[in-house]
Amino acid sequence: MSRFVPKPEDHFTFGLWTVGNRGRDPFGHEVRPAVPPVRLVQLLSEVGAYGVNFHDNDLIPIDATPQERDAIVAEFKQAVNDCNMRVPMVTVNLFSDPVFRDGAFTSNVRSIREYALRKTIESIDLAAELGAEIFVLWGGREGTEVDASKDPRDALKRYRECIDFLCEYVIDHQYPLKFALEAKPNEPRGDLYLPTTGSMLAFIETLAHPDMVGVNPEFAHETMAGLNMYHQVAQALEAGKLFHIDLNDQKIGRFDQDLRFGSESLKGAFFLVKLLEDAGWQGMRHFDAHAYRTEDEEGVKAFAEGCIRNYLILREKVHQFNEDPEIQAILQELRAEGGDEPLVYSADAAAALKDRTFDRVSLGEKAYPYEKLDQLVVELLLGVR
Amino acid sequence: MSRFVPKPEDHFTFGLWTVGNRGRDPFGHEVRPAVPPVRLVQLLSEVGAYGVNFHDNDLIPIDATPQERDAIVAEFKQAVNDCNMRVPMVTVNLFSDPVFRDGAFTSNVRSIREYALRKTIESIDLAAELGAEIFVLWGGREGTEVDASKDPRDALKRYRECIDFLCEYVIDHQYPLKFALEAKPNEPRGDLYLPTTGSMLAFIETLAHPDMVGVNPEFAHETMAGLNMYHQVAQALEAGKLFHIDLNDQKIGRFDQDLRFGSESLKGAFFLVKLLEDAGWQGMRHFDAHAYRTEDEEGVKAFAEGCIRNYLILREKVHQFNEDPEIQAILQELRAEGGDEPLVYSADAAAALKDRTFDRVSLGEKAYPYEKLDQLVVELLLGVR
Amino acid sequence: MSRFVPKPEDHFTFGLWTVGNRGRDPFGHEVRPAVPPVRLVQLLSEVGAYGVNFHDNDLIPIDATPQERDAIVAEFKQAVNDCNMRVPMVTVNLFSDPVFRDGAFTSNVRSIREYALRKTIESIDLAAELGAEIFVLWGGREGTEVDASKDPRDALKRYRECIDFLCEYVIDHQYPLKFALEAKPNEPRGDLYLPTTGSMLAFIETLAHPDMVGVNPEFAHETMAGLNMYHQVAQALEAGKLFHIDLNDQKIGRFDQDLRFGSESLKGAFFLVKLLEDAGWQGMRHFDAHAYRTEDEEGVKAFAEGCIRNYLILREKVHQFNEDPEIQAILQELRAEGGDEPLVYSADAAAALKDRTFDRVSLGEKAYPYEKLDQLVVELLLGVR
Amino acid sequence: MSRFVPKPEDHFTFGLWTVGNRGRDPFGHEVRPAVPPVRLVQLLSEVGAYGVNFHDNDLIPIDATPQERDAIVAEFKQAVNDCNMRVPMVTVNLFSDPVFRDGAFTSNVRSIREYALRKTIESIDLAAELGAEIFVLWGGREGTEVDASKDPRDALKRYRECIDFLCEYVIDHQYPLKFALEAKPNEPRGDLYLPTTGSMLAFIETLAHPDMVGVNPEFAHETMAGLNMYHQVAQALEAGKLFHIDLNDQKIGRFDQDLRFGSESLKGAFFLVKLLEDAGWQGMRHFDAHAYRTEDEEGVKAFAEGCIRNYLILREKVHQFNEDPEIQAILQELRAEGGDEPLVYSADAAAALKDRTFDRVSLGEKAYPYEKLDQLVVELLLGVR
Repeated sequence: MSRFVPKPEDHFTFGLWTVGNRGRDPFGHEVRPAVPPVRLVQLLSEVGAYGVNFHDNDLIPIDATPQERDAIVAEFKQAVNDCNMRVPMVTVNLFSDPVFRDGAFTSNVRSIREYALRKTIESIDLAAELGAEIFVLWGGREGTEVDASKDPRDALKRYRECIDFLCEYVIDHQYPLKFALEAKPNEPRGDLYLPTTGSMLAFIETLAHPDMVGVNPEFAHETMAGLNMYHQVAQALEAGKLFHIDLNDQKIGRFDQDLRFGSESLKGAFFLVKLLEDAGWQGMRHFDAHAYRTEDEEGVKAFAEGCIRNYLILREKVHQFNEDPEIQAILQELRAEGGDEPLVYSADAAAALKDRTFDRVSLGEKAYPYEKLDQLVVELLLGVR
Repeated sequence: MSRFVPKPEDHFTFGLWTVGNRGRDPFGHEVRPAVPPVRLVQLLSEVGAYGVNFHDNDLIPIDATPQERDAIVAEFKQAVNDCNMRVPMVTVNLFSDPVFRDGAFTSNVRSIREYALRKTIESIDLAAELGAEIFVLWGGREGTEVDASKDPRDALKRYRECIDFLCEYVIDHQYPLKFALEAKPNEPRGDLYLPTTGSMLAFIETLAHPDMVGVNPEFAHETMAGLNMYHQVAQALEAGKLFHIDLNDQKIGRFDQDLRFGSESLKGAFFLVKLLEDAGWQGMRHFDAHAYRTEDEEGVKAFAEGCIRNYLILREKVHQFNEDPEIQAILQELRAEGGDEPLVYSADAAAALKDRTFDRVSLGEKAYPYEKLDQLVVELLLGVR
Repeated sequence: MSRFVPKPEDHFTFGLWTVGNRGRDPFGHEVRPAVPPVRLVQLLSEVGAYGVNFHDNDLIPIDATPQERDAIVAEFKQAVNDCNMRVPMVTVNLFSDPVFRDGAFTSNVRSIREYALRKTIESIDLAAELGAEIFVLWGGREGTEVDASKDPRDALKRYRECIDFLCEYVIDHQYPLKFALEAKPNEPRGDLYLPTTGSMLAFIETLAHPDMVGVNPEFAHETMAGLNMYHQVAQALEAGKLFHIDLNDQKIGRFDQDLRFGSESLKGAFFLVKLLEDAGWQGMRHFDAHAYRTEDEEGVKAFAEGCIRNYLILREKVHQFNEDPEIQAILQELRAEGGDEPLVYSADAAAALKDRTFDRVSLGEKAYPYEKLDQLVVELLLGVR
Repeated sequence: MSRFVPKPEDHFTFGLWTVGNRGRDPFGHEVRPAVPPVRLVQLLSEVGAYGVNFHDNDLIPIDATPQERDAIVAEFKQAVNDCNMRVPMVTVNLFSDPVFRDGAFTSNVRSIREYALRKTIESIDLAAELGAEIFVLWGGREGTEVDASKDPRDALKRYRECIDFLCEYVIDHQYPLKFALEAKPNEPRGDLYLPTTGSMLAFIETLAHPDMVGVNPEFAHETMAGLNMYHQVAQALEAGKLFHIDLNDQKIGRFDQDLRFGSESLKGAFFLVKLLEDAGWQGMRHFDAHAYRTEDEEGVKAFAEGCIRNYLILREKVHQFNEDPEIQAILQELRAEGGDEPLVYSADAAAALKDRTFDRVSLGEKAYPYEKLDQLVVELLLGVR
């Protein structure tokens, strides 16, 4: 169906680690062969992606020599250019290596924090070299199982020191980069620090350079804690702090599933797409997900295509929602009761409120046609409107 | 045991609604009689509470006349004074009455938002009259089941307008009051806005008077979402934003249980007490919980005494932890690796990091005695050390 | 749309308590007026319901005299007949009254267990009088917050005694009634005994008359614990134990929401409908849900109509699934690998297995087109196929 | 402390995979070296274990030749004998190899089901050779992410065929072995079939040889779904179906943590130990857990010792509970109300119930001292009684 074909301006991006995922999990070995990054770039190009993102070690082995590193980067750049793609975001792996087993920026060991900083600034250099605009930080090991091991206030102080350090590094190098912090409630640690997008937004306000730092909310991560991704992203957007977004899917209250976007939470995904579209989101639509362990390369491609198609299908439904007369009539009626002007304090306004006679009982009898409204949305989603 | 007897300086407080809870739930009727507030104050005095808190309508019926209101308040003040107690916190009920069925400050209906403001400023006047220092706001109906009904960005804007209004009102009246916002992920709404303490902390930074507003984290509310209360409170404390705290207990991922403090999450409660004590917390230790529905008045008293005793028992264990040579030796060793000085950026520091040779493999072989440390904590908690 | 109009043979039923729900919740008062059962029957008739179910006290107040009871029942019967409806199921309320605060059949107090039996046999008489075929038992208070209070093995023994008693009562009276046990993991108790449909199925096998007893799985209840309702119902069906079903909707890991069927878990609801339709389910399609607290009577009607419409829409999609060539081609290919004959033991078969050379590696390279298959289902659900 | 020293009759056992766990997780590489089984047996002997259990491939590589297999087994037997230990349980790995990526006994591919049977009967032979009495089956891949891929009823039929096959194999070989089925709600699959111990108990009743098959409940697995392990094990025990048990710990609603027994759910672990001790459990006390990823070999040993110590500490508290006069007085009073005789149906008994006048209101006023009782338990657990 030609109506669900991606265009470059849709800004669909994938991480190398998503289509490169080999299907290893806590109970099973790899099921798919390692695929070279250059081939992954081609695959992404074939499915219509605009860009490709990566962790440093998705591209460059952790023990590569500088010469090996340069050769790899050069080859990768060429592949990206050949495919007419971009690298809009880079991130750093501070979680796979044993050195980070008890945290990177929040480690109790100073030299590990320093090593984490070094690894990150090298990744920042690489991001700048490749023209990325966003640098994501996910602190996959910044947490605990043993709360006696670390005062969480110390952990936050160390975390802040490192982010401040990195901001200054970027400023000093005049890189056109911003940071996007990604929250996750748990896994692989028992509890991760700053477990939700809200916590991250609050933390950012305590940084030395809050303007350079925003958030990268992930559908699966907020959903694991049973939170409403649509609400979480809305808070970030409203605060001007949505710098990047990770689209995928997940069931509540279980291990990190990283499912194909739109495959599980049809309604939740719809409202998220609606929010991004209504807000005129100019950033990337990044898929951080992977194919089921049942798949081969063809399945990986079906997975990537499915992510994109589901976004486009839901976007079409957003347009339909915004033009549906019955839905819009209900919303119009609701808006009419909202009043246009803000509620602003003045002594007079307060006095007027105190003097006013409210008919609480009849205001309380007022009902709202939300069963009807929601059913219209469900029928729109199911394609029977 | 005389060692677990509360003193006034311990600042234990309860809400009228906690010991006054009548045992109604979604599937059952009230099982305990209504007890007049004056009697509840006496009961709290008997168990050693320092103060008593309330929602406006815990004390004053929503349809009381001004004369009735004044008589009730006078009688209540007398009872509080007679018992040598205080009213450190007041809050407003913006959730029980049908008028708030679709929100108070975030309602789609302007006159309901105005009524909510009026009800709140009357409660603020009452708080000031009774000498309270903290005014808690819990938006029990600020959320949705039907995301089509409201753009969450509009909800946040309205929420902000109302809090800004209330701050100005307090400033204008020179009340020595601060606000503490309480988050909850869901219940009674399908999803509540600003669902965690982190979200609230971030929201506060967008207010007109952020200095006047902090948070009131509740153990049960953070725990419902599977978050670590100890970490959540630590972030608030570290940001200077812990203005009040709600102590109780809860199992993860279920309805709001409001269990006796320390009755379920023995380890989690210990670390929370440790944090408050180590931080020299000067505020209230407020219990927002209620007795099981199986209890009569004697059981309600046992419940209230149990909350206090568990705090005091855990506080004793905190002292023991802080003096335990084996535990402290491990922590000392961990601290020794942390380094004293902060990691501060300079061009030289960055260059030095880049030049430095890190022995990643041997740093990665470094292990941490956390199984041992945690087992020491467990044995301390179980009283066998 | 005339294609989603219910017919009597669809067997859609509702409880009086569903459309009669008044919107009370743990944090708020009733928002809708009490509606007489006779009017609720009419309302259900208007939306196309085949039958109406109830708890004894939905119809008859707990303190009604026998004369009042008879008058109420007579009037109700007349209303049901007038509307050309039926009463396919009756149940008993063993949870609202304070007497059941610590359980009914599992109470520590013998006279309460006896009272629960008496209340139930009176409800059974009523069920028989009204021609019901199924009697549902939901033990809403059969659980604990305090595990010291009761050995769960004793609780199970008492539960069994009561169910055995009731089965014998039904046999003795030659009532054409079967029992359906309904599980729930928690709420209103901290933990309910026999918390899932699986536990109930196992418990049934320990009863004196297992043939008379099956299960009544509820979508919301299984989902609260994060279980897959489709799988749960499939086990009951396969065991010949699906006697009744409660259709509604719910988010995982939170309070019992009882949402409109098909309003939240679009995909999960689809597979459940598919299972019932593919199995040729002859029983009732009972909705155990209620309207949001935002609604008035019109909203309640929209809610009830929405439950029915969503079932019918999803049923149409089941037919579409069963005829979709692309989907069926994949399933056909999968079936072809399954082999037709069962794997039956014999010494020879075992010896043959031991002798056989399996090419494990190439069997392990075999992939499954599940991303593609699932995407086809998602597109079918979204109405773009 | 000599009071918490294990004795052989305590029957503490561990899997090779527990102390042999290398710390790999979905986001990180191995942190501990591979340790040969023979060394693990010695380590377990040093911590006081009675026995050692394993999956076939914990001991024997999946591609070992028969000669290699025999040499490994001989060496292992010798080590077990040298340490004066036993092998009470063996299990089979049907989840790690890519061949099982879409299930073993429930695979859509017949030859994979056959390979799974072959692998299992070889493991059964090994179990018999080593004198094991219990053979555990955990179907780690028996589930789905894509419900379109498999009718769960077909999955159950295939599962049953395989278990029936295995039972006949054991009968035919006169092995003194019983099977214990282990449930898990999810992970590594999105949803696993037969997700709870209750589901397994029900499934067993549908087998050809139900007497040979029981359950192996795991603390972490039931807890992941928010279920009460104490209640789950009680149902199995009461049904005579507790054949084995997996002791560990876990937080609700997250990935499978396999924490040190007694390290998280102090109260839940206490009641589980109480149940096993009160029931005179003669089987194994098997720990299925592993050390945090922060640990080295010393930490692994601390982990194993901690599991055992926590069991013994809690067992001492069980004795204390059973002798505590205040606790026992409350329980005695509760028991007194329970009545000794069972409630047995007869026409006369039913008639008597109907004739009896129940004072519902005063029975409903009866309260239960559960806040007090629970607080006594908490104080007992905290060691301040």
